[in-house]
Amino acid sequence: MDPLLYWVGLAAVAVNALTGVLDSGRKQMDLIGALLVGVATALGGGTVRDLLLDRNVFWVVDQSYLITALGTGFLTFFIARALPLPPKLFLIPDAVGLALFTIVGTQVALQWHTPWLVASLMGVTTGIVGGVLRDILCNDVPLVFLKGELYASAAWLGALTLIVLQALGLPAVTSTWIALAVILVLRLAAMRFHLTLPEFRQHKTPQA
Amino acid sequence: MDPLLYWVGLAAVAVNALTGVLDSGRKQMDLIGALLVGVATALGGGTVRDLLLDRNVFWVVDQSYLITALGTGFLTFFIARALPLPPKLFLIPDAVGLALFTIVGTQVALQWHTPWLVASLMGVTTGIVGGVLRDILCNDVPLVFLKGELYASAAWLGALTLIVLQALGLPAVTSTWIALAVILVLRLAAMRFHLTLPEFRQHKTPQA
Amino acid sequence: MDPLLYWVGLAAVAVNALTGVLDSGRKQMDLIGALLVGVATALGGGTVRDLLLDRNVFWVVDQSYLITALGTGFLTFFIARALPLPPKLFLIPDAVGLALFTIVGTQVALQWHTPWLVASLMGVTTGIVGGVLRDILCNDVPLVFLKGELYASAAWLGALTLIVLQALGLPAVTSTWIALAVILVLRLAAMRFHLTLPEFRQHKTPQA
Repeated sequence: MDPLLYWVGLAAVAVNALTGVLDSGRKQMDLIGALLVGVATALGGGTVRDLLLDRNVFWVVDQSYLITALGTGFLTFFIARALPLPPKLFLIPDAVGLALFTIVGTQVALQWHTPWLVASLMGVTTGIVGGVLRDILCNDVPLVFLKGELYASAAWLGALTLIVLQALGLPAVTSTWIALAVILVLRLAAMRFHLTLPEFRQHKTPQA
Repeated sequence: MDPLLYWVGLAAVAVNALTGVLDSGRKQMDLIGALLVGVATALGGGTVRDLLLDRNVFWVVDQSYLITALGTGFLTFFIARALPLPPKLFLIPDAVGLALFTIVGTQVALQWHTPWLVASLMGVTTGIVGGVLRDILCNDVPLVFLKGELYASAAWLGALTLIVLQALGLPAVTSTWIALAVILVLRLAAMRFHLTLPEFRQHKTPQA
Repeated sequence: MDPLLYWVGLAAVAVNALTGVLDSGRKQMDLIGALLVGVATALGGGTVRDLLLDRNVFWVVDQSYLITALGTGFLTFFIARALPLPPKLFLIPDAVGLALFTIVGTQVALQWHTPWLVASLMGVTTGIVGGVLRDILCNDVPLVFLKGELYASAAWLGALTLIVLQALGLPAVTSTWIALAVILVLRLAAMRFHLTLPEFRQHKTPQA
């Protein structure tokens, strides 16, 4: 793998471990519980992708990912007790992590020669499943599915952008940067301007 | 695979995607959230079966399944906003989907030469895990485990029927139709006549 | 596998199936629902470990595990209706099951030549994921993550003990017994003396 991408991937793992540990604070978990939620948040998306593609699970082969997740989680646990860490501080790193995971996941699936629509879903899976696992372990409805987040949708649009640009013959580097930018801009704009997708709403017949 | 079975499998995927999207309406999800819950409901059971058997995951290899799930989910999302879609409309398609998924899952496991009891559980897994995932993602106790549904039990009895009939030497087609009928009849009778299995109840000693 | 370890593994499966079925009593499940929760509790940890390591899933290859889980679950279901089965009765068997699953899981991972930190997490996974699944299926926050349980932490310390002792060159049998004892003693001491780990707590600035 590209060495830059490798370091960037580790950074995304660290950011996700951090948000996982911070979120576990809602549920009175102890140190190890919070660490395990952090690890699941950081490694869950790539794990499900690798299982679905029948690849070696990335963090089982190279334990740097696990060390990064545990180390960051550990630091977060103790720093959050001493300093105020408002979750808003992490919205931008979190958006960066979403963008990176999604694009890496899509590229891995394309290299594995899955059909294109499957590849885009693998990107979304890599990007969001960590957060879904975190919310399931904390017994909440996954945030990423809820109205007003534009989280999964930003990821999906970015993954599709990457696939279209590569099919059009753009160089890998260019299409990667554009796709990353699509996710980041969309996600940050959604937070800034409260963009939303249509919400699910069932038709009600009067008095029925 | 038998071409009839293939089309029937796609129909079962469509029905499950539809029920997944309809159910997501309980939790204020947006379009993409609802679609992803629909996809998880439609593809979850077969995915877990394929992972447990170490087969290629069916929808990663052939993206018709994913297209079917997404397309149906998309249509459901917009139709449900315009027309009343009472969930009762879908109880019979849902029972058909349960029967089909269970029987296909059992047959796949038998062809994979798993022991018979494992094969029956693979059938149940294929039939019910989609709905379990849907309820976990919507943060509910899985309906299929609850009293009075006769959902998992109908699936299991059908899977065992298939295995017994094939062991007795009946032709594959005959035993498939009988097993499908067992699940359908049991599930529909349970809904019609409120059949139930014994509920879990803990013995209480007075004043203890 | 060592025949003693094999029987001991089956016993751990039985204990976990029992606690799974007892816990399902909180949620009005019927017989099959309770059995399936019992099966998920008993086999979930080893299943996730085997999927992550890309091994054959243990209970798909040898159905004795599934028969044990179902048989125990079935007996528990009917015995619990007739006799009081206070959950406290099972705290010690449950701690034994945790210790056994964790150590077996760690050893399997070491034989699979995973890095040591990954191996320790595989041990924890094998030990606790069954209970996590049980709590997710019953729609609760997983107990093992909560403050005051010292559940995952006892497992992790035991797994690390095993790895250190084997790296120091102790014979496999000795290091296994010591690691098992570490988990059991820690878990039982935690219950007896209410030992706890630091809880996650966010720093609050006054009026902020």
